[in-house]
Amino acid sequence: MRQAGRSLPEYRRARGTGDILEALADPELSAELTVQPVRRYGVDAAILFSDIVVPVCAIGFGVEIRAGVGPVVDKPFCGAEDLDRLRPLEVANDVPQVPETVRLVRRLLDPLGVPLIGFAGGPFTVASYLIEGGPSRTYSKTLHLMRSDPDTWSELLDRLAGHATAMLLAQVEAGATAVQLFDSWVGVLSPADYERFVMPASAKVLSSLSRLHVPRIHFGVGTGELLASMAKAGADVVGVDWRVPLDAARARVGTDLVVQGNLDPTCCLAPWPVVEEATRDVLRRGGGSRHVFNLGHGVLPETDPSVLERIVDLVHAWRPDEEPGEEQWAP
Amino acid sequence: MRQAGRSLPEYRRARGTGDILEALADPELSAELTVQPVRRYGVDAAILFSDIVVPVCAIGFGVEIRAGVGPVVDKPFCGAEDLDRLRPLEVANDVPQVPETVRLVRRLLDPLGVPLIGFAGGPFTVASYLIEGGPSRTYSKTLHLMRSDPDTWSELLDRLAGHATAMLLAQVEAGATAVQLFDSWVGVLSPADYERFVMPASAKVLSSLSRLHVPRIHFGVGTGELLASMAKAGADVVGVDWRVPLDAARARVGTDLVVQGNLDPTCCLAPWPVVEEATRDVLRRGGGSRHVFNLGHGVLPETDPSVLERIVDLVHAWRPDEEPGEEQWAP
Repeated sequence: MRQAGRSLPEYRRARGTGDILEALADPELSAELTVQPVRRYGVDAAILFSDIVVPVCAIGFGVEIRAGVGPVVDKPFCGAEDLDRLRPLEVANDVPQVPETVRLVRRLLDPLGVPLIGFAGGPFTVASYLIEGGPSRTYSKTLHLMRSDPDTWSELLDRLAGHATAMLLAQVEAGATAVQLFDSWVGVLSPADYERFVMPASAKVLSSLSRLHVPRIHFGVGTGELLASMAKAGADVVGVDWRVPLDAARARVGTDLVVQGNLDPTCCLAPWPVVEEATRDVLRRGGGSRHVFNLGHGVLPETDPSVLERIVDLVHAWRPDEEPGEEQWAP
Repeated sequence: MRQAGRSLPEYRRARGTGDILEALADPELSAELTVQPVRRYGVDAAILFSDIVVPVCAIGFGVEIRAGVGPVVDKPFCGAEDLDRLRPLEVANDVPQVPETVRLVRRLLDPLGVPLIGFAGGPFTVASYLIEGGPSRTYSKTLHLMRSDPDTWSELLDRLAGHATAMLLAQVEAGATAVQLFDSWVGVLSPADYERFVMPASAKVLSSLSRLHVPRIHFGVGTGELLASMAKAGADVVGVDWRVPLDAARARVGTDLVVQGNLDPTCCLAPWPVVEEATRDVLRRGGGSRHVFNLGHGVLPETDPSVLERIVDLVHAWRPDEEPGEEQWAP
């Protein structure tokens, strides 16, 4: 569960009110924040505490993360002339804290036998922040550049794909045993636009990792129409938000792949019987195999940790054959 | 094309910088703003210039519309104790300007032979503004109330359904010849939650209008997974946002209904050859019958009016048999 820490008092104590980018520059702190949800919830994997803008910050593009707002860019990306501001990422020099954090996390997780999922932002979402200058509801500047200057767009996404690849390779080399390419807002695109303008860059990231033989998870919010394409991009696991029933998602993704998801994060705010019913529904639709249980997006900060604890316990205890008849469970 | 006016210089001149709710209180001005896109673009129908919060404003719930933000509620809806603040809408007393505007619009449109589509906000979206107090990305307060106090939620939606019904009935009686129930943000729900928590209220609005024998259009953004349910709610026409290819949407909606949409509004910012290709793609996928061409959401204010003019001309001139072979056109 990405951002599972945000709901924890121990997270808020450790993080304080400081800048998240400062926290990410501190391997000891980042490792602690990565491991906290494992300690509290007993989940089956940790996901690296990180942010999608780490690479562009590190190469000096001029990005800050404002509390309650998100990434804000000093001088947004406007066109070809800004490509020079996006040099390749050299992990050892630009973000040495990332592999260092991974190594520290492994030291904490190895005794528990818990794996670590590496993390990087997908090229569309990072591009959208660089171009919009901040969060957006319509992504109109991003989509305008994409359609009106496809060569610059393609080069931009290619460079961002290079950053994501460098981040994920370094994380796996340092000890991550799976990776997640998190393209939060790519669901704003139609399938045709996704396949034409984004899939080549995402596929490049995912295929660059194939030689490492680690599971590659690919996720975005509101991607119901894109699931088949995201599977084609080379993912082993396709994350699904809560809007698409998992059995419908599996039909789109294909039966060979693994689906991940998809409890509605806002559902965790409801009374327990509602949460329990919704969790069981996700498990039933997931079918008991080739399904990684997760929320359908990040944990909301106002979530009661005890509810997440109960969800984890329920998922761990659940067996497909416990469920009453008529379920579409295929062993 | 809803909000087609926003891109027009004559709209900005007529509207000035005043409060939109003040503009909506002025039938002459509202009628003028309703008709402007018809004059400029030659579209086949007008849609009433209105806002989803008109009824709740009129009964004194305490809502203002802040420029660049959207509806902001003075004292948000927190629970059952706030139901008393939501009395039924009496159109003749509370919003006499609405039927008056419709009558004025008809006087302007009748000589042109152009019909008018009535407009009201869908119950989920209005409820979300009342509960969140303003725009939201997660709708967490709304969804929390929905799941934790379903009785209050159901009563809230029922009252808002009453408002929408009163608004649409009055508009048809005054001369609108179709209606649109616009539930902008309902796409945040899974199909199961939609059918359980929202569909009964939407169905009540739509069925209350059945005796009027006017086409009932139902639309929300990001409703790919909800299209079949929205059709079941009693719509004659289901609006589709740009994310779902129209041929896929038709398969979900059913072949008996009409689909409306779905050019990506951000696409209108692109160079003409891109717009033309995308427009033709929508027309082809629409199949040449039982399809109302439209954008997939409102017109963006930065849209060049001349692009919309060219789109309208292209749509009017298009014939299915013009397209090169291999298209899935069923006469």
